[in-house]
Amino acid sequence: MADDAGEHDHDSQLLDALRPFGEGVSDAALERLASLHPADQADIVSQLDTSVRGELLPRISTESKALILAHLREDRRLEIVEELSTEALAPVLDLVDFDIAVDILHDLPAERARETLGQMATASDVAPLLPYADETAGGRMTSAFVSLQQDWTVDQALASLRRTSPAAEQVFYLYVTDEQRRLEGVVSLRELVVAPPETPIMELMTPEVLSVRASEDQEEVLRQIQRYNFIALPVIDEQRHLMGVVSVDDVLDVAEEEATEDMFRLAGLDEGESLIRPIGRSLLPRLVWLLVAMASGFAAAGVVNAFDNTVDRVVALAVFMPLIAGLGGNAGVQTVTLVVRSMALGDVDLRGIRPTLQRELLIGIANGVIIGLLLAALVFVWKGNVALSVVAGVALLLNMVTGVAAGVLVPVSLRALRLDPALASGALLTTFTDILGFFFFLGLATLLVDQIA
Amino acid sequence: MADDAGEHDHDSQLLDALRPFGEGVSDAALERLASLHPADQADIVSQLDTSVRGELLPRISTESKALILAHLREDRRLEIVEELSTEALAPVLDLVDFDIAVDILHDLPAERARETLGQMATASDVAPLLPYADETAGGRMTSAFVSLQQDWTVDQALASLRRTSPAAEQVFYLYVTDEQRRLEGVVSLRELVVAPPETPIMELMTPEVLSVRASEDQEEVLRQIQRYNFIALPVIDEQRHLMGVVSVDDVLDVAEEEATEDMFRLAGLDEGESLIRPIGRSLLPRLVWLLVAMASGFAAAGVVNAFDNTVDRVVALAVFMPLIAGLGGNAGVQTVTLVVRSMALGDVDLRGIRPTLQRELLIGIANGVIIGLLLAALVFVWKGNVALSVVAGVALLLNMVTGVAAGVLVPVSLRALRLDPALASGALLTTFTDILGFFFFLGLATLLVDQIA
Repeated sequence: MADDAGEHDHDSQLLDALRPFGEGVSDAALERLASLHPADQADIVSQLDTSVRGELLPRISTESKALILAHLREDRRLEIVEELSTEALAPVLDLVDFDIAVDILHDLPAERARETLGQMATASDVAPLLPYADETAGGRMTSAFVSLQQDWTVDQALASLRRTSPAAEQVFYLYVTDEQRRLEGVVSLRELVVAPPETPIMELMTPEVLSVRASEDQEEVLRQIQRYNFIALPVIDEQRHLMGVVSVDDVLDVAEEEATEDMFRLAGLDEGESLIRPIGRSLLPRLVWLLVAMASGFAAAGVVNAFDNTVDRVVALAVFMPLIAGLGGNAGVQTVTLVVRSMALGDVDLRGIRPTLQRELLIGIANGVIIGLLLAALVFVWKGNVALSVVAGVALLLNMVTGVAAGVLVPVSLRALRLDPALASGALLTTFTDILGFFFFLGLATLLVDQIA
Repeated sequence: MADDAGEHDHDSQLLDALRPFGEGVSDAALERLASLHPADQADIVSQLDTSVRGELLPRISTESKALILAHLREDRRLEIVEELSTEALAPVLDLVDFDIAVDILHDLPAERARETLGQMATASDVAPLLPYADETAGGRMTSAFVSLQQDWTVDQALASLRRTSPAAEQVFYLYVTDEQRRLEGVVSLRELVVAPPETPIMELMTPEVLSVRASEDQEEVLRQIQRYNFIALPVIDEQRHLMGVVSVDDVLDVAEEEATEDMFRLAGLDEGESLIRPIGRSLLPRLVWLLVAMASGFAAAGVVNAFDNTVDRVVALAVFMPLIAGLGGNAGVQTVTLVVRSMALGDVDLRGIRPTLQRELLIGIANGVIIGLLLAALVFVWKGNVALSVVAGVALLLNMVTGVAAGVLVPVSLRALRLDPALASGALLTTFTDILGFFFFLGLATLLVDQIA
């Protein structure tokens, strides 16, 4: 199983076995599918054509369907859920973790979600979780956790554990509650196993439990788990009632999702973008973004246009103009990316802005002086005009410094306005440096036009 | 403890208490520091001035130092480690997880690492892990895990667990080995607890264990853990000997580190960039990158220069030139970001390139036609020249399509050459679209110059 190459061959063989249309899905193929890990089954099922899947799904058990759903990536799950009838879907959702059932119900149209819930045996467990948005602790938690009563002994706790043989697949911490189900402490399964049987749970437990509110954003849950190296965190309501547990594997994807979201925003993509998204749904968000870029591009064009007399007299300005605008943009993109990422990782907040701005300005000035001198030298060598080379070098320095300053200030301002700092995308920043770059370069050139022309 | 705002106040009060120079670190401040979670202690210690820290560190226990080190972020750890003498460091490293000790030894200069290891009580445990690079399974694993012998019963296993009261802080899965320590199966602690005491381990265990080789890249470990929703993965050598265990919290940071690395590369930053890095160490990598950008910028300038007669005749070309180059760049950056991220997440590999290229080309053409028509209309309204507006629209379409194609093909080629696709950074891509954008626009304008001028 550890042989990855082998796995891939296996997959493609199985795909071949499952693909033939018309002839139907063979028993042998079904058997081979069933022999795989659900994560691999999920991969294969999501790669099948809809028609083949339509034939396959009714022939696999509800349990298998539940395991496959649990291992499908979120963006591929809905497609398959939509191919199941409500009657087929409800018993499958009874078997997946409550938080996954909730996610799926959230994705369905309201009417269909209500019908499905109505047919679910676990409706009374799942319904209370529905109010929580997917991206909160409440939306990520499972309510299938193990809790112990504080007046038990270790022996009673172990007996209870054996009796219930908890459905909770992964039990790491056992949470201790009082008679009102208020969170009072935590015991790890390991502590329970190695403690003398008669030890009171009260004595064994750690009374200070870090917890999160159900309404807390999933990013905050990730930060807490990461910061304290936890495997799971209990989720409580306003009155400290234990409501559920979020485990590290529930938020493992959060780190990647948030990073992807920031990366996409910086590039002018919406967070739902994906290579498997239907083209029709990708077109509009990208177009909107390009229209914004075009509008700001026209602002830059307006600056050039305002100096058209100067450009008309010195055509060499048109040659170096994009270089000066572009290098300012590059320096700004370096800074904005660093700042946006550092904010996302919690390395810097609004209070840490002054040192950040100083740091980036220093770097911008130092590199701006070096690059500016170099550019001036190269321009002089190429065009042999001292004034032109001075104007190019100074404009570049000014543009790099303002680019770097904008790289700090724009995401910081967005954060201060409680907007996503990643909206300070690279493209908006480069438009800013385009406009200023043209202004500095052509403005200075206009002042010195008699020396240049 | 769950009150986040309260925590922050607490931190800043403590910082205030620890900060006064000269007067020395007060006992009260030390006590308050000791009362905090090690993660919070780590935060505070890393924020202190070196001089205050120099006074503080000798006054806190080796155990506390170990806990603080274990909770420090990697990029802040080295600074503090360098402030400790070898005599002080060695006993601290004896108390942290082996994989952290190895990381720290790797970060130290070779001579100092050898000295430190020589003074460590756990040298014989840590030394065998040293050959593994930090970013491999071997570098991330801990060798402090719990294994069971396959001929034991549940009762014997529990007795062994109680007897050794494992130092392994987090025990989730117990790995079963044969007499040669070869990995044979896995039992979860929960299964062990709920099984009848006389059950043979052989019967209880799951014989098919997914595992990774010690030399495997950490990203692959993350993928496996994520894919199969595991909490830990066993690490084996070529002969299936069980060498260690990587747990999900060891790779939780990997997802973020890899995302940060890609994001930084796309922006032309090196992976070690950080707002807390000394400026001197940030300057050069950024400068190198800007020099590369300048060199390619000169290529674009050369294109404009080659058409200087045309620009000289039609100064309006200089007005729209940056817009056409910029929009092609924006479309290309959207695509390259999506492709690089999808490759990093394993959503697409070299075999999936054709559909990806088709998809992006279709989007590029569709949006290129819309934006091209709009640009042509706006140019006509502004400048009233049909030929100029047609040239602008067509050049934009061509540039967007080539930008999008480069956005797929450049990272794919890098991957095929076994280089990091993220080196296909936005800035290199925009230089490419600058060059082609100028070429398409000025080239077409030169062909039609008599209609435009």
